Amino acid sequence: MRTSIATVSLSGSLTEKLEAVARAGFDGVEIFENDLLGCPLSPDQVRARAEQLGLSIDLYQPFRDFDSTSPDRLRANLRRAEHKFRLMERLGANTLLVCSNVSTDAVIDDDLAAEQLRLLAERAADHGISIAYEALAWGRHVGTYLHAWRIVRAADHPNLGICLDSFHILSRGSDPGGIEAIPGEKIFFLQLADAPLLAMDVLQWSRHYRCFPGQGGFDLTGLLAHVLRTGYAGPLSLEIFNDNFRQADTGRTAVDAMRSLIALEESVAEVLTTGSSLPRPGQPGGFAFAEIATPDPGRLGGLLGALGFARAGQHATKPVELWEQSGARILLNRTVPEAADDGATSLVALGLDSPDPAISAARAKALLSPVLPRHRAPDEAPLDAVAAPDGTELFFCGCAKPLWREDFAPVVPPKDGTGSVRSIDHVVLAHPWDQFDEAALFYRAVLGLRPHESVEVADPYGLLRSRAMTNAAGTLRLVLNMAKVGPRGLPGQHIALADDDIRATARRLRDLPDEVTLPIPDNYYDDLRARFDLGEERHRELRELGLLYDRDERGEFLHLYTVTVGRIFFELVQRVDGYRGFGMANAPARLAAQHAPAPAPVDP
Amino acid sequence: MRTSIATVSLSGSLTEKLEAVARAGFDGVEIFENDLLGCPLSPDQVRARAEQLGLSIDLYQPFRDFDSTSPDRLRANLRRAEHKFRLMERLGANTLLVCSNVSTDAVIDDDLAAEQLRLLAERAADHGISIAYEALAWGRHVGTYLHAWRIVRAADHPNLGICLDSFHILSRGSDPGGIEAIPGEKIFFLQLADAPLLAMDVLQWSRHYRCFPGQGGFDLTGLLAHVLRTGYAGPLSLEIFNDNFRQADTGRTAVDAMRSLIALEESVAEVLTTGSSLPRPGQPGGFAFAEIATPDPGRLGGLLGALGFARAGQHATKPVELWEQSGARILLNRTVPEAADDGATSLVALGLDSPDPAISAARAKALLSPVLPRHRAPDEAPLDAVAAPDGTELFFCGCAKPLWREDFAPVVPPKDGTGSVRSIDHVVLAHPWDQFDEAALFYRAVLGLRPHESVEVADPYGLLRSRAMTNAAGTLRLVLNMAKVGPRGLPGQHIALADDDIRATARRLRDLPDEVTLPIPDNYYDDLRARFDLGEERHRELRELGLLYDRDERGEFLHLYTVTVGRIFFELVQRVDGYRGFGMANAPARLAAQHAPAPAPVDP
Repeated sequence: MRTSIATVSLSGSLTEKLEAVARAGFDGVEIFENDLLGCPLSPDQVRARAEQLGLSIDLYQPFRDFDSTSPDRLRANLRRAEHKFRLMERLGANTLLVCSNVSTDAVIDDDLAAEQLRLLAERAADHGISIAYEALAWGRHVGTYLHAWRIVRAADHPNLGICLDSFHILSRGSDPGGIEAIPGEKIFFLQLADAPLLAMDVLQWSRHYRCFPGQGGFDLTGLLAHVLRTGYAGPLSLEIFNDNFRQADTGRTAVDAMRSLIALEESVAEVLTTGSSLPRPGQPGGFAFAEIATPDPGRLGGLLGALGFARAGQHATKPVELWEQSGARILLNRTVPEAADDGATSLVALGLDSPDPAISAARAKALLSPVLPRHRAPDEAPLDAVAAPDGTELFFCGCAKPLWREDFAPVVPPKDGTGSVRSIDHVVLAHPWDQFDEAALFYRAVLGLRPHESVEVADPYGLLRSRAMTNAAGTLRLVLNMAKVGPRGLPGQHIALADDDIRATARRLRDLPDEVTLPIPDNYYDDLRARFDLGEERHRELRELGLLYDRDERGEFLHLYTVTVGRIFFELVQRVDGYRGFGMANAPARLAAQHAPAPAPVDP
Repeated sequence: MRTSIATVSLSGSLTEKLEAVARAGFDGVEIFENDLLGCPLSPDQVRARAEQLGLSIDLYQPFRDFDSTSPDRLRANLRRAEHKFRLMERLGANTLLVCSNVSTDAVIDDDLAAEQLRLLAERAADHGISIAYEALAWGRHVGTYLHAWRIVRAADHPNLGICLDSFHILSRGSDPGGIEAIPGEKIFFLQLADAPLLAMDVLQWSRHYRCFPGQGGFDLTGLLAHVLRTGYAGPLSLEIFNDNFRQADTGRTAVDAMRSLIALEESVAEVLTTGSSLPRPGQPGGFAFAEIATPDPGRLGGLLGALGFARAGQHATKPVELWEQSGARILLNRTVPEAADDGATSLVALGLDSPDPAISAARAKALLSPVLPRHRAPDEAPLDAVAAPDGTELFFCGCAKPLWREDFAPVVPPKDGTGSVRSIDHVVLAHPWDQFDEAALFYRAVLGLRPHESVEVADPYGLLRSRAMTNAAGTLRLVLNMAKVGPRGLPGQHIALADDDIRATARRLRDLPDEVTLPIPDNYYDDLRARFDLGEERHRELRELGLLYDRDERGEFLHLYTVTVGRIFFELVQRVDGYRGFGMANAPARLAAQHAPAPAPVDP
């Protein structure tokens, strides 16, 4: 299917937008009028630039408040339309979006509206231009696509059709099933926008909160299936009014947009059983490893040792140590990447257990993930890796034969971890505000993870957002944080380790000479006593061991945090009886504790 | 009246909040539970710290979902309450906020709710604690203050009263007049919050968009008058959930909060005719001058000269030049303030014509404006100055005898401006996101300006907000911009000059060898022709002269912009037939032009 995007969806000047759209692989654009008005290029020059970039100009928009009860106003509107037609000829655009009138003098009479639109279509035809009539959700009289279609059908002119916009249809709760009654050749244009499900004024919702398909709560797959069943053969075009996209990096947003359409095409192909060319590997089942770059492996190794990890291997050719405890593996890489400009210790890579690493990597590549060059020695394991939105490298590792493991020479004599940590329970990744939705779509599309509800967490210095993503089996868990930047920013990223006996671990850590765990304020425990009737002994044990507590409808959750090293810290978690959450209720207390003056550094 | 504020209204740790609240002059605080949980101080230590700072702890909150249909839940809630009572004894807080139940098992039966609340009040009485019951706007069954009052009256216990919250009352459109039927001694607490008038889910509106009185759209003066007529003698307490305040500077927000209460007390005193101690000068009538700090007065003087200004004076003791043209006066100060870290040319001060400068300054000071120290030579004019939120110095100048003018030695021979500029029409000031609402309240309270609607302007790199403020006579106009920061940020501040013959000025500027005016894209003029039927000749003249055009229901507006020097530029405006706007419709085209690659610099 052809792909297109409205220039209003991106940040920047018109030429910056066109270039980013072409680079991301779109076939065409909708030119949003304001973008042209501010552009120093003439319409002819814009047309030439688009052609040079291989982009068609699929739509010019918007033309507002056309159908009017006042003959004077109608005359002025026809005059205004003539100007637009001439402009569109210079642009090489042959479809004009006309949206339903929102003003108080809008035509109430459907027959009159049809007559006026037919008149407009006749004038447009003289210029080889077609009119796509769209019902705005807040149109004065015409607010639904079926109403718009009745008028278009009555007008009955070959140069008049309708424009469908998923936001205007789904935000009003209209049944998109009615689309199938419209002949495909009368659907002149299809605009696709998703949005989070908000209860607010629909105009404000539309103007500020739209997002790319898969980032919100609308069923765009269902809607698109209805449209395609009509035989619609025009472009799938994104028209996204979003305050964040307006100021985000243009190139990134364009790629994010294209990724959303590729994923949507796959899901609609599934519904229509028409087949998709996207590689479909089995879902990754867990974490093979987490890799931390650190200029000071001694310090971090000391912390891992305290948690019960043992140094189990040394990479054959790179300054990378493998630390292991049961199924939890942490790599410490002394090479700090250039991107980490402050040289601080931070998470740089994740190994994912994949049933078919090559197919996983091919899917990620098809979904526009940057493929990472590998500097590999001849006898090392081939690892397929792509960059996640936050720059974390994702390696797809075979589950059956973990080849990468063989690149590490075992320590002699072999050492085993000494604690009760079993595996990596989940990993928390930090994203700036403008990459949060992008990241959710990335993990949903590339890894097939299911996004949970986005939740708010009160940090003493601002509200944060957090969203968990899990695979179908519940064995791979990622949590995406919207990171706070600036002087009061915290790392926002950490590694949570599943511990089969967190009490024993906490006791051991408590008895170490250095402070390894994050001290939790006593007031937390007073409140815990009020919230849950745990019994005095159990409550005292939690307090003494510095364990945090949560509960859901299934079971209990015990957890603790380590001190922070550079930009990373660890969490130990124990899930009892199938608890499924992440202890979010305790996040404010943890964040407050992390903001408190730092304890003495850990000395291994 | 006593003043108080909920800790949730501010950013930071609990101790940072207490200190800022005390510094801003509040009498007390409401402790929001989450702030205590994350605090390393014990409740006793918090109490001691508050006492040390001279703050009472007026309320502990919130206690949620108390009244319940399940006997088990009620028992657990009473147990939970006992914990809170003991905690409050340690804190020295003797009022607990209990809000109406929002859960599905909330009591529907008012008699039962009264019975349970009486039971709670009895338990509270044993600890010397009172219960203030509040109807949340989204309470499951109890959602209005009159409903809460009926239950409290029925419960009839001396330790049970109601808490009124202006947001919960006004957001639901309840008539606050009914408050007067409640005996003042049964109103245990009053929480005041304003909010912009948004059409959205009331819970989200409340949690994210509350603001200080005078910053939103609620009639808090009217509500407070009703409350005071009951004889209520408790504190006026601010409880503001606001995403911006949560991450803004704590001290600034606390001062902003206190300023809002001082202004509110004045306005309610006017309604109740009880008298206010705030100095009330006449409104400033216009701009005496605008002062620009610049390391390069030659360049800026060149630009002013091109606009028809003449250098009319030199300050007796400071490196300051006076440039004048009719009633428009611009000071060029070679001393760049330290705060301007990049040393760039920018607006640093405004002189305001005040009928009584000393009273204007006293009012500003009473409203917590920082009073600026003056370095004045013995024979120089005394100028009263305060700092505006963006750091601009505001000087109050006498209208009748502008003393400051005498500090400038006239240039010999005297020079007059040569153009048609008559006065400063308006000044646009830039504010970061977290000072925008603060600035609106400041100018409203300190100068008595009326805020217009806040409007959105599409910059190619993000949406901006802009809000005009004018005096009653319409002769003093300020426009507050929310400035975009970062690499794509524009100055956001400028000085607009009223020109009686802008066509002549534009013609003169066009013929200068150097580019002085901002070039406007040709596409703007094509669109102008479609939007307005101006006639070919008039349209051609606008295009040739680079003039922008707007129209409102009264008249027309012609304007143009100069190139930018450092962080400032000028606008020339001509208002025809009483046009009252600011040409906002043209702002996107202007912003796009300003983002375009800079023209060659102006050489004077």
